[in-house]
Amino acid sequence: MTATTNLVIDLNCDMGESYGAWHMGNDDAVLQFVSSANVACGFHGGDPSTMRKTVAAALKHNVSIGAHPSLPDLVGFGRRPMQVTPQEAYDMVVYQVGALAAVAATQGTRLHHVKAHGALYNMAVKDRPLAQAIARAVHDVDASLVLYGLPGSYLIEAANELGLRAANEVFADRTYQDDGSLTPRTQAGAMIEDLDTAVAQVLRMVQDRVVRSVNGRDVPVQADTLCIHGDQPNAVVFAEGLREALLKAGVEIRKV
Amino acid sequence: MTATTNLVIDLNCDMGESYGAWHMGNDDAVLQFVSSANVACGFHGGDPSTMRKTVAAALKHNVSIGAHPSLPDLVGFGRRPMQVTPQEAYDMVVYQVGALAAVAATQGTRLHHVKAHGALYNMAVKDRPLAQAIARAVHDVDASLVLYGLPGSYLIEAANELGLRAANEVFADRTYQDDGSLTPRTQAGAMIEDLDTAVAQVLRMVQDRVVRSVNGRDVPVQADTLCIHGDQPNAVVFAEGLREALLKAGVEIRKV
Amino acid sequence: MTATTNLVIDLNCDMGESYGAWHMGNDDAVLQFVSSANVACGFHGGDPSTMRKTVAAALKHNVSIGAHPSLPDLVGFGRRPMQVTPQEAYDMVVYQVGALAAVAATQGTRLHHVKAHGALYNMAVKDRPLAQAIARAVHDVDASLVLYGLPGSYLIEAANELGLRAANEVFADRTYQDDGSLTPRTQAGAMIEDLDTAVAQVLRMVQDRVVRSVNGRDVPVQADTLCIHGDQPNAVVFAEGLREALLKAGVEIRKV
Amino acid sequence: MTATTNLVIDLNCDMGESYGAWHMGNDDAVLQFVSSANVACGFHGGDPSTMRKTVAAALKHNVSIGAHPSLPDLVGFGRRPMQVTPQEAYDMVVYQVGALAAVAATQGTRLHHVKAHGALYNMAVKDRPLAQAIARAVHDVDASLVLYGLPGSYLIEAANELGLRAANEVFADRTYQDDGSLTPRTQAGAMIEDLDTAVAQVLRMVQDRVVRSVNGRDVPVQADTLCIHGDQPNAVVFAEGLREALLKAGVEIRKV
Repeated sequence: MTATTNLVIDLNCDMGESYGAWHMGNDDAVLQFVSSANVACGFHGGDPSTMRKTVAAALKHNVSIGAHPSLPDLVGFGRRPMQVTPQEAYDMVVYQVGALAAVAATQGTRLHHVKAHGALYNMAVKDRPLAQAIARAVHDVDASLVLYGLPGSYLIEAANELGLRAANEVFADRTYQDDGSLTPRTQAGAMIEDLDTAVAQVLRMVQDRVVRSVNGRDVPVQADTLCIHGDQPNAVVFAEGLREALLKAGVEIRKV
Repeated sequence: MTATTNLVIDLNCDMGESYGAWHMGNDDAVLQFVSSANVACGFHGGDPSTMRKTVAAALKHNVSIGAHPSLPDLVGFGRRPMQVTPQEAYDMVVYQVGALAAVAATQGTRLHHVKAHGALYNMAVKDRPLAQAIARAVHDVDASLVLYGLPGSYLIEAANELGLRAANEVFADRTYQDDGSLTPRTQAGAMIEDLDTAVAQVLRMVQDRVVRSVNGRDVPVQADTLCIHGDQPNAVVFAEGLREALLKAGVEIRKV
Repeated sequence: MTATTNLVIDLNCDMGESYGAWHMGNDDAVLQFVSSANVACGFHGGDPSTMRKTVAAALKHNVSIGAHPSLPDLVGFGRRPMQVTPQEAYDMVVYQVGALAAVAATQGTRLHHVKAHGALYNMAVKDRPLAQAIARAVHDVDASLVLYGLPGSYLIEAANELGLRAANEVFADRTYQDDGSLTPRTQAGAMIEDLDTAVAQVLRMVQDRVVRSVNGRDVPVQADTLCIHGDQPNAVVFAEGLREALLKAGVEIRKV
Repeated sequence: MTATTNLVIDLNCDMGESYGAWHMGNDDAVLQFVSSANVACGFHGGDPSTMRKTVAAALKHNVSIGAHPSLPDLVGFGRRPMQVTPQEAYDMVVYQVGALAAVAATQGTRLHHVKAHGALYNMAVKDRPLAQAIARAVHDVDASLVLYGLPGSYLIEAANELGLRAANEVFADRTYQDDGSLTPRTQAGAMIEDLDTAVAQVLRMVQDRVVRSVNGRDVPVQADTLCIHGDQPNAVVFAEGLREALLKAGVEIRKV
C-alpha cells in the first residue's frame, strides 16, 4: 500500500461553455470533483462575461485554470474540422490564451494549462505541423503552461520538443485500441457507460500504467490527467463516482 | 529655444483594422510618423493574424503598442452606440487587452496603453460608470498601462481615481467648443481640412496649452497625445505634415 | 353568451431561439398551446438548422409561422439597444425575413407575420423612423404579412400607413399604466405571476376591450394577439392555463 | 457569320463582397462587362446593406442576380474547407439564398441563379452528397433558379438529377488538365495571366467546345458561363478585354 501514496492523477473538465443567454453544462456541480478546468475562450463558447464567472467559480473551488482554445466556429461549437494553416492556428491560440490569461489576472491568478478544444484537438493529434503550431503558441505566450494532449500524439511530441510540460490525457468513458488510440465513436463499443467499468479502467491506467484494449491486450499508457465530461445528463454522478473510487484506492487527485 | 526643448507630444493612430481578407488603412505608411499605435483586438476589426502582423510592424518602427478595444459590432465597425452594462464593458476590455497582450508577449514586447475605440470611447467620455469600468479593466489587467481619453472626460477622471496613468488626447483635424469639447461632426465647421490650420492648432496646444475655440476664445487644454487618422485618402500626407511641423518647432515626438 | 362566440385572440410565442449546440426554450411543449410562432432568424438566436427544425415543429402543430428579426447581437441575445439607422434596420429585417421565408418555402409553407425581437421591438415602439423602416421592410418583402406591435405604438401606426395588416399585442404577465403602456420591469408590480390574475386581465382585454391599470383605471386596449413566454420555468404551465381559461370562456384561439 | 450568331456565353463575376466598413472589389467597373452577378449573402462577405446596394447596382446595369452562398467563415472569407454535413450545407444555402431573394424582391426583381462560394463550391465539385444537398436547397427554395458549377462535377450532376437548370462554368485565367479539371493553383502553369492567351482559350471553348490542356490535348468542354474575377488589380482591364474579344468574334454575351 505504500506505493499507492505516490499515485496521483489530475481530473480535468471542459467548462465555461455557456454563451450569452445560452446555458451549457453543470459547472458548479462538476467543479466539486475535478482539479483542473478547461475554460472556453470565446471561439466555440465562453463570452467574456462567462469567462469571468467561470474563472471565479474555479478559484472558489481551488481548481486550476486552463485555456480551452477552439477553431472559430461558434455555430458548430468548434467541433467541425476546418482547414486552417499552422500560422492561423498559432494566432488563434495566442489570442484565446491571452484573453483568458487577462481574465485570470484580474482575479489575481494565473493560467495553469492549455487544452485545445474539439476539432482543433482532434486534428492536432494527427497533424504534426498543427500540433507544433499550437505548442509553439502556448510556449510563446507563457512557457510555464502545461499542454494537455493524447498520449503518443503529435501534441505531446510538440510540447516535448519545445521543453513545454505535457500532460497525457486519458479517458474513463472511452475504450482503447491495441495501438493505444481511442476507439472511434462511430464504432460499436467505443463508449463505456458503466461506472464500475470506467473506474476499473482508470485504476489500471493509474496503478499499472496499462489499459486493457478492446481486443483484451494490455497496452502501456501514461495517465497524467483524466478527462471528465460535464455536459451529459449523468455527468455529475459519473464525476463523483470516479473521484470517490480513485480516492478510496489511495490515488491523490491534483493538478499536473 | 530653451523652453521648446522640453515640449513633447505623442502621436497615436488607430491601426490593424483590417479583417481577414479585407484591408483597411495605410498602416505601414503611417507607422513612419507616429509614436503610438492603437491596435484593433478583434471586436471591430483586427483578427488574430492581423494583430500579429500589426504588432510586428509597430515593433519594426519602434512605435509603442496599445490595445484598441471595441464594442462587439463587427458589421458596424464598433461605431454604433450599444447599451452595455459597466460589467459587460469591463469584461470585453479585459478580454481584448489580454488577447493583444499575448500577441505582444509572443514577440517579446509589452503593451504600453489602451484607447477605447469608436462608440465605446465616445460613450465613456460622457458616462461615468462606463468610464470607470473601462479604467478598472485596464488597471486590473496591468496597472502600468496608460489610458488614453479626452481631456476633462470621465475616462481621464476614472484613470486618475485608480492611480492609472492617463494621456489627454487632442485632435488636429477637429475644432473645439468654448467648454473644451469637440464640435460635433454634425455641425458645420467641425472638421479642419487644411494642414496649416491643423498644425497651428496643435502647436498652440503644445506650446501654449490652449486651443482657440470656434468662438475665438482661448480654452485651456492638456495635450499629451495627438490623434492621427490613418484611413482617409490624404491621411499619410497629413500625418507627415504634422510630424514635420512639430519637429521643426522643436517639439519632441515620443510616447507618453 | 352569444357574443362570446365571436371573441377571438391569437396566442404568439417566441421560438427557435436555440443556437448551434445551445438549447433554449420549451418549443415542443409550448407549440401545443399557441397559434403563432415567432421564429428567430439568426441574429439573436436561430441558426439555419434550428430554423428548419422550428418551422417543421410549427407546421406539425398547425401553428402559423412568423419571422422574429433582431439587432445583430448574438452575445447580447438582441436585448441591448443599439443605435442603428432606419436604413440599417430596414436592411436587417429584409435579410432575416427573407431567410426564414425561404426555410418556410422549402417546407411548402409561407410566413404569416413578423414580430421584431427584443431591443429592436422596444426601440421601434417609441421611434417613428425606426418603426417605419421595419414596417416598410416587411411590406416590401411581402405585403401580405402581418406586423405585430404594441397597441398605440409607432409600429402599429407605421403598418397602418403602409396598408400592412397590424396585430395589437397584449401581455398576460405584465401590468399596465394609465396611458396603456406597460409598467417598466424596473418598477415594482410590473410582473403578474399569478395565473388567475393573468387570466382575468386577458379576459377583460378580450371581452371588454379594456385593461385595469395599476392605478385602478379601465384603459381601452385592442387585443389581437397575446404574447406567451416560453423560456421561463413555469412557462408551459402558464401557457396551458391561459389557453384553457380562454377556451372555457368561449374565446377562440387562432392566428390573426 | 451564320453559325457565330448562335454562339452565346454568360459572363459571371463575384460581387458584393464588401462587409460593413470594409471595401472589396471593383463592382461598379466590372458590372459594365458581365451579364451575371454572384452576390455575397453575409456568410463570407456581404452584410445586409451591402447586399441591397449590390442588387441595386446590378439592376442598374441590367445584370442578372444570383446568390453566392458560403460556409460560415467570415474571417476566412469562406475559403477554408470545413467539414459540414449535407444537412448543414442545405440549411445554410436555403438561408442565404432566401435572404438575397428578399433583397431582390424589395427592388422588384428576382434571383436568376446560385453559385456556391469558395470552399463550399470546391468541396461540392468532388463531394456528391454535398453537391446534392446544395442542389436540393436551391431547388426547394425556387426550382426556376440556375445552378452554376464546374463541368463534369457533382454540382452539375446533382442539378440534372433534380431537373434544375445547370450552367457549366469555365475559366479564362486557369489552365486545364487532360481530364477537363483545372490545374491546381499549387502547380506551376495553373494561371493564365496573358489576356491574348485567355481570349484564345475562351474562344475555343465557345466556338469549338474544347479546351487545349496543359499537355496539348483538346479536351471537350461545355462553356455556358465564364467566370470573371473582380478583385485583382487588373481585373477590370481583363474583363473588358475578354468582353470585347468575344463580341468581336460574334459571341453574344447574355445570362444563361
